[in-house]
Amino acid sequence: MKAIVLLSGGIDSTTTLYYAKKKCYKCFALIFGYGQRHKRELRSAVAVAKRAKVPYQIIKISLPWKGSSLLDKKIKVPNRNKFKGIPSTYVPARNTIFLSFAVSCAEAIGADAVFIGANVIDFSGYPDCRPAFYKAFQKVVQKGTKKRKIKILTPLINMTKAQIIHLGKKLKAPLEITWSCYKGGKRPCGVCDSCKIREKGFSRLKS
Amino acid sequence: MKAIVLLSGGIDSTTTLYYAKKKCYKCFALIFGYGQRHKRELRSAVAVAKRAKVPYQIIKISLPWKGSSLLDKKIKVPNRNKFKGIPSTYVPARNTIFLSFAVSCAEAIGADAVFIGANVIDFSGYPDCRPAFYKAFQKVVQKGTKKRKIKILTPLINMTKAQIIHLGKKLKAPLEITWSCYKGGKRPCGVCDSCKIREKGFSRLKS
Repeated sequence: MKAIVLLSGGIDSTTTLYYAKKKCYKCFALIFGYGQRHKRELRSAVAVAKRAKVPYQIIKISLPWKGSSLLDKKIKVPNRNKFKGIPSTYVPARNTIFLSFAVSCAEAIGADAVFIGANVIDFSGYPDCRPAFYKAFQKVVQKGTKKRKIKILTPLINMTKAQIIHLGKKLKAPLEITWSCYKGGKRPCGVCDSCKIREKGFSRLKS
Repeated sequence: MKAIVLLSGGIDSTTTLYYAKKKCYKCFALIFGYGQRHKRELRSAVAVAKRAKVPYQIIKISLPWKGSSLLDKKIKVPNRNKFKGIPSTYVPARNTIFLSFAVSCAEAIGADAVFIGANVIDFSGYPDCRPAFYKAFQKVVQKGTKKRKIKILTPLINMTKAQIIHLGKKLKAPLEITWSCYKGGKRPCGVCDSCKIREKGFSRLKS
């Protein structure tokens, strides 16, 4: 069995990659450069793919319309809890774009599944991290591809961050080389949504 | 009302653009360079956007896994009727990728609709040209975007090529500057699927 794994370089996608390997999938990682301000995560993604010894491909895409604080440095990345609802870090239709490329790749190389490390618990409020979205996308695959049977798999969808970290450690995923911070600095800022969720996950694991 | 129109430079997307304009949408055209061998169509798409006086953006994407005779010059473009089923010109998940970018753009600029000139009659057997695919993708938009209400519109979906040409002429769409041929020559080859469908459309219109 072959699988495409979407790899961002964070805890979730890294754990997902090791999960897919554990499930005996021959994995191929797709890494996206989409103009995100935290390009640092690309380096982590490549490092993770190398550590996991899986082939990978970096796909560069341009989203010239911006519309997100992850793409547009003029918009401030919000600190945790300052916003309610969908935060400005939401990139319009990002996961739809990533999945589309993954399904295209899966059809072309004859893969059976696409893995994505989305999760609805401890998430940031993004609409494209919910189970209903993945269910709808699975239907798109059934109706719009030649192969029709490529599965969209979201093994972490109902896990908390602490559970994901626990699973990652159990699978010996190299969480220490992952990157979560939304900002582009040399070190994690410690105050953005993504840093806070990561911190909370690790601290809950200890307690 | 604002709309994103997917513009390939062929008869269908050109007619769709003029249809959307007629329906009083303020249009924004997205043109994709995806490594297709018939780059000539990109020039046609730009020419159509200029003629229609609509702003446009060229999005360059890379599909390094090939898997289609439109992307890979090592695979021969089939002549009409030589193949049954889905032909080698099918590009895996292409319309899913295009729609994903269009929805991302629509969210970012606050557009109400995405127009695509797909049609199921006189089509080439592509799975992503069928109504069921667009219905499924509409659900993805409802479940996976912030705005949720962006409509995916396929006004030509049940028209024959002759009907599309008739509509295009009625709307004063510049069909004479469109490009259909799958091959990369200076002139249309006259024998590929796309050339044959175009020819059939024009000849049925005359009779």
